[in-house]
Amino acid sequence: MKEGQKIRRVKLAGMGRALAEGALVFDGQTRYRLRQGETLLDLAQLAAERALAAAGKEIQDMDCIVCAMATPLQAIPCNAALLHERMARGTGIPAMDINTTCTSFISALDMLSYPVEAGRYDNVLIVSGDTASAALNPLQEESYSLFSDGAAACVLTRAEAQEDSGILYSCQKTWSEGAHDTEIRGGGGLLPAFFLREENREDYCFDMKGVRILRLCARKLPGFVESCLKEAGVCREEISLVIPHQASKALKVIMPRLGFQEGEYIDRVSEYGNMVSASVPYALCQAVEEGKVKRGDRLLLMGTAAGLTVNFMLLVF
Amino acid sequence: MKEGQKIRRVKLAGMGRALAEGALVFDGQTRYRLRQGETLLDLAQLAAERALAAAGKEIQDMDCIVCAMATPLQAIPCNAALLHERMARGTGIPAMDINTTCTSFISALDMLSYPVEAGRYDNVLIVSGDTASAALNPLQEESYSLFSDGAAACVLTRAEAQEDSGILYSCQKTWSEGAHDTEIRGGGGLLPAFFLREENREDYCFDMKGVRILRLCARKLPGFVESCLKEAGVCREEISLVIPHQASKALKVIMPRLGFQEGEYIDRVSEYGNMVSASVPYALCQAVEEGKVKRGDRLLLMGTAAGLTVNFMLLVF
Repeated sequence: MKEGQKIRRVKLAGMGRALAEGALVFDGQTRYRLRQGETLLDLAQLAAERALAAAGKEIQDMDCIVCAMATPLQAIPCNAALLHERMARGTGIPAMDINTTCTSFISALDMLSYPVEAGRYDNVLIVSGDTASAALNPLQEESYSLFSDGAAACVLTRAEAQEDSGILYSCQKTWSEGAHDTEIRGGGGLLPAFFLREENREDYCFDMKGVRILRLCARKLPGFVESCLKEAGVCREEISLVIPHQASKALKVIMPRLGFQEGEYIDRVSEYGNMVSASVPYALCQAVEEGKVKRGDRLLLMGTAAGLTVNFMLLVF
Repeated sequence: MKEGQKIRRVKLAGMGRALAEGALVFDGQTRYRLRQGETLLDLAQLAAERALAAAGKEIQDMDCIVCAMATPLQAIPCNAALLHERMARGTGIPAMDINTTCTSFISALDMLSYPVEAGRYDNVLIVSGDTASAALNPLQEESYSLFSDGAAACVLTRAEAQEDSGILYSCQKTWSEGAHDTEIRGGGGLLPAFFLREENREDYCFDMKGVRILRLCARKLPGFVESCLKEAGVCREEISLVIPHQASKALKVIMPRLGFQEGEYIDRVSEYGNMVSASVPYALCQAVEEGKVKRGDRLLLMGTAAGLTVNFMLLVF
């Protein structure tokens, strides 16, 4: 294994999830969308409270609150400060955002595992979730019918001496040839809200160039997965379950090309669609609740994100 | 010293900075603003290239590109992916955003020091910068005349065995009682660009409640600084120079209350104003260039950020 990739002895001590209460049906498939008056903070708080309960912890036990989300709730302050206001007001728990768009949860888990293992933090609350519905373009049917609003969270702790849990290997790559294949061009500093007009309205909407993304993924992903497995010194047969980002129905096409067959990975795209940063932790949380994942199982979290960013993380749950 | 706070043997191998080319003068003080056609990506790239040159490195040597900025350039993808497109297209260097608003640079340095020390990454490029000018409210004079657009960057590496460089101690706290004292309410998922009207235009502008922030800082900061110094086991006399966030002209009032007198800390608010996330690294970079900071000096980076977040980091340069 590559230097710097010794096992990090951390554990997902508890997870939680929450789904928007509104719903739309496209071609027989339900997509969950915030109902009137509901906000992503409601979902994030609910998921976080459930994660804390599952871990047997209180918010006061947390040493850091990380929002690992793809999109800002406000331009300022960071999302974690706004969630902190809901859950941790009056405490001094540090709040921070980590963002690699759709794979933000894996990146945050990856980065925070180091200070947790080093003893800086004992317990970290990581919360993912996005409101894709805030910026979907009804004219772009492929993306409009794909996304659900949801949130998921975990409590990250150090593993005890007698526990097997840990991160065996992780790797992220970004290929910015794909930086504009998935984007919302407007709303930030480059094209502020003030410049929104009827004629550039689409610049403020989610824009996905599905075919371009698939082509870049097909070119990059097989080699990436192969090199990760090799560096980790792990073969596919040793992996109990793969939890991929639920990017789109193309999951069924891509996963076999990466050497993972139906049943070896979670695919709930038809049930929930793509939940942006919440997809991976939501699917993992649900698999844990349904008994599909047990302590000691060797899991692979992986996914593609706008950027184009890809993440690969092997962990013992 | 608290467990988990042993020295992290990392080094700021090189720094760079860049200032917007436009300028406005308020009451005799210059504020730098992006000129027509200039974007924050131009400044970020320039600062990053200068940091690489100062470190004697190429972009290909970097193992991770982190944008530590307060505001998004686009709603999707993350800022680091957009900077990656400018500087690292064709490479697979991972790109990631870390955001605690104004103190994002200190937070990113803090978090990335762990994987660097652990051997996961050898070289990390951290880039800060914001376009406050994109959302300033001309009707709020206090903030309108305060901000400059700028960027600053550093290359973070492991320190060699014979070098003294390292992070001695770091601490972040967030008190979300202040979550709405500094904010831009609109432009994100909670109040999307589509809802901008003439009558709620101010919701999309930077909004700073100066007196409330000062009151919260006065209540929280002295105890925070005292407890950090105590946990670090360092007294003020052992610190060569303090590099505070250049929040406002109130710096002159607050720093003495924290036990730091004029000359012991950098104050260039009258020259540059507040550069949001770029303030701390810009001031540090400039101090290095001017010979005010040398290898082996014991520095304190600190600041307040929207959240309200505060960061404190003691390092041997």
